[in-house]
Amino acid sequence: MKRVFRTLIKTSILPLVALCTSYTTLAQEFSQAELDTVAKVREHARHSELSWQLVESLTTEVGPRLPGTENDKMAVAWAKKKFQQLGFDKVWLEPSKFPEWRRYHESGFILTPSKQPLHLTALGNSVSTPKAGLSGEVVMFETFDELIAAPADSLKGKIAFINYRMNRDIDGNGYGPAVKARNKGAVEAAKKGAIAYMMRSVSTSHHRFAHTGGSHYTKGVSKIPTTAVANPDADQLARLIALGKPVKVELNIQTEDLGEGTSYNVIGEITGSKYPEQYVLLGSHLDSWDLGTGALDDGAGVALTMAAAKHIADHTRPERSIRVVLFAAEELGLWGAKAYFKHYQDRLDNIVAAAESDFGADVVYAFESNVNAASLPAVREIAKQLKPLGIKYIRKNAARGGPDLIPFKQMTSAPIFDLHQVGTDYFDYHHTADDTLDKVDPDKLKQNTAAYAVFALMAANAETAMAGK
Amino acid sequence: MKRVFRTLIKTSILPLVALCTSYTTLAQEFSQAELDTVAKVREHARHSELSWQLVESLTTEVGPRLPGTENDKMAVAWAKKKFQQLGFDKVWLEPSKFPEWRRYHESGFILTPSKQPLHLTALGNSVSTPKAGLSGEVVMFETFDELIAAPADSLKGKIAFINYRMNRDIDGNGYGPAVKARNKGAVEAAKKGAIAYMMRSVSTSHHRFAHTGGSHYTKGVSKIPTTAVANPDADQLARLIALGKPVKVELNIQTEDLGEGTSYNVIGEITGSKYPEQYVLLGSHLDSWDLGTGALDDGAGVALTMAAAKHIADHTRPERSIRVVLFAAEELGLWGAKAYFKHYQDRLDNIVAAAESDFGADVVYAFESNVNAASLPAVREIAKQLKPLGIKYIRKNAARGGPDLIPFKQMTSAPIFDLHQVGTDYFDYHHTADDTLDKVDPDKLKQNTAAYAVFALMAANAETAMAGK
Repeated sequence: MKRVFRTLIKTSILPLVALCTSYTTLAQEFSQAELDTVAKVREHARHSELSWQLVESLTTEVGPRLPGTENDKMAVAWAKKKFQQLGFDKVWLEPSKFPEWRRYHESGFILTPSKQPLHLTALGNSVSTPKAGLSGEVVMFETFDELIAAPADSLKGKIAFINYRMNRDIDGNGYGPAVKARNKGAVEAAKKGAIAYMMRSVSTSHHRFAHTGGSHYTKGVSKIPTTAVANPDADQLARLIALGKPVKVELNIQTEDLGEGTSYNVIGEITGSKYPEQYVLLGSHLDSWDLGTGALDDGAGVALTMAAAKHIADHTRPERSIRVVLFAAEELGLWGAKAYFKHYQDRLDNIVAAAESDFGADVVYAFESNVNAASLPAVREIAKQLKPLGIKYIRKNAARGGPDLIPFKQMTSAPIFDLHQVGTDYFDYHHTADDTLDKVDPDKLKQNTAAYAVFALMAANAETAMAGK
Repeated sequence: MKRVFRTLIKTSILPLVALCTSYTTLAQEFSQAELDTVAKVREHARHSELSWQLVESLTTEVGPRLPGTENDKMAVAWAKKKFQQLGFDKVWLEPSKFPEWRRYHESGFILTPSKQPLHLTALGNSVSTPKAGLSGEVVMFETFDELIAAPADSLKGKIAFINYRMNRDIDGNGYGPAVKARNKGAVEAAKKGAIAYMMRSVSTSHHRFAHTGGSHYTKGVSKIPTTAVANPDADQLARLIALGKPVKVELNIQTEDLGEGTSYNVIGEITGSKYPEQYVLLGSHLDSWDLGTGALDDGAGVALTMAAAKHIADHTRPERSIRVVLFAAEELGLWGAKAYFKHYQDRLDNIVAAAESDFGADVVYAFESNVNAASLPAVREIAKQLKPLGIKYIRKNAARGGPDLIPFKQMTSAPIFDLHQVGTDYFDYHHTADDTLDKVDPDKLKQNTAAYAVFALMAANAETAMAGK
């Protein structure tokens, strides 16, 4: 019902907006006093150590946070306590189910022409090898498509290996194409008779770290162990295979599928003074893969969204609420986000703006919206206040949001914002053992925190409540 | 006897040299034809792929080469065959004994306040923990001296941890001070009752690689497991300890002392036309630690010294011999070098110049000698021919040589040369799993090869036979 009402409003406003083609606003979106407060919050946030202290505390005292583990439970307790200590008005947990999985052991060796250790990791959800491991000849493919095109039964008893190399770019655009081979590589390899699957890590690093991440099986296709090897090890395999003699590899992967587990979205809210039921959603995810300490993915996001809201609360009470949602079990399939948006499915209109920080800790270099036309005057005002942080305004109004906002977008016309971060180095560390606190630059984190604070406060105070397209 | 004779000559020449204070030479050290050949060899070497092909072949087809292992045997066979294929006049092996040691398993966890994996490695020669591992509270020291100053019995049941951080510099000068804690840390810790020893890796890397290397026990002091943790893990331990609560750690190290083993120095010689018994010694070491594939340490040195001699032989026959010695078991204590110089102890005067390449694969930026005064005119001519490669001449005449030349220096007045390499990044990779082929820059390796070729040919052809001080 609400959705219908909203659509009517949008339809009736659109002709008016069309009349105002220049950058004049229909109403003054922010008073001078509000803009003065925004500047104060911005300056405070860009000099505050708070977000650093939070990411340091989470990644040091808890460390890795694979959903369902003791560490995950500690992270939930940590987050709840931190929200309370920071003086958030409301702090609560909401349960989320997810498929629980554990990694116990992973090792591998090249066996011919000489024995050499392989640096590899099981992809999330991988089944185990036999206890004593398995071995087979490696068959290399350059791309996922080449594997799909391989003849039926051509991999019988073999280990399939996709050697596709992800490219480096500021926006991480190489990730999507590379991840295809991670999601479904084992399924396609098993269809042709392979006994195990290996892929070059979805990583831009030239260091010897294997990159884990979600993978999936398909009903009716046998489940085979699925792994990623570090880039130098993929190079080594490719060189050996190029010599023209069979290359045999041994793998030993021990994992466990524990069935359905429960974790929690941890939520902290600064309650709005005027429209408390409406809120700006700042998202990040509390869980991490087990290999590193989840500093870039996504300890930084957790820390900076918490800190941004706290900095606002230290200076003013926003007119709408600011809700920081630390999603559960993102890495295993956005489970916390799915639970959250389902739980609030008949109240999604209350979300006037949503942004997720889940792309490391480098600086924000651009700001972009994805909102209806009536919201654009406020968006432009926000962009102006982000400019002193070195952030440019992308006027495409086509923001895509972080992964935990995918369920939101699928359910409704979501008002999504991107605070685009520099991600040139992100995939050097993401999902590897090397994702540790020293990779977070405190100064860049401050800029990032300030950007979220400016965005959240202004989205909460805009005269016109923002909404999606 | 020879030594006495040599000294007499040196003494009698000295006054003459003193008269020639400017850069005039006593004799013309090189003919124009010889200098033309030097230029040809230099240009050929700086464009040749040979050294790259050699390091690629060794590190790909053999990989890690811990002394005594199957891979070590394969490396010896590889080197002998390559020397032969390259057309060296003489190729032979000389045995070297060494204390054989194996690494089977290493793992560690921080246990409190949360369980987190530690990236660590056993130092060479470490004993095992009990099969099930051991655990204890960590006591942190900033320096080796602080550990030595700790009260007797103060580490009873504890795990000692030295958190000393090596500094980064072009010549690797941070290595020596940091290595003190690697050589003897476990001994000093055991004296105070510690059950195990950990140290921050002797490494400049901020990646999660632990750095192995030689360590020693002392008779009468109990042998405790001795390990190094990666720099990010050392940071994590230090942060946790700074929180003021006890930090407990679990270690499981499984190694084996196999007693005395045998490996081989592999030697290839281009025989001189005029003084075949005199020779230029180009050294490197064939063995490597087991963690990486020994590309920088010392596959590059092996490749470029072999290639340098081959490039010379392709253009001319030198007047003195050029002997490439690939030393065995360097990493476990210079065992091949000790055997070599002992074997030739009464013929060391035949060595007119010696240089070892064992500092990675970055460019040579400076050239330095350590010779008697009569040799300096030839040295200056060599320096002139290295200049087109961007190599400056350090006139201190105080070259120290690579590690395998230490026994040589201890036995006689050795004519030592340094082709100083840029080592700024060397200790990011050295002795870690990340020492792999992709860290070798083919163009830098070519410059390096050309430098060794110029040096070796000119040292072999100098009118005055060079000698040590």
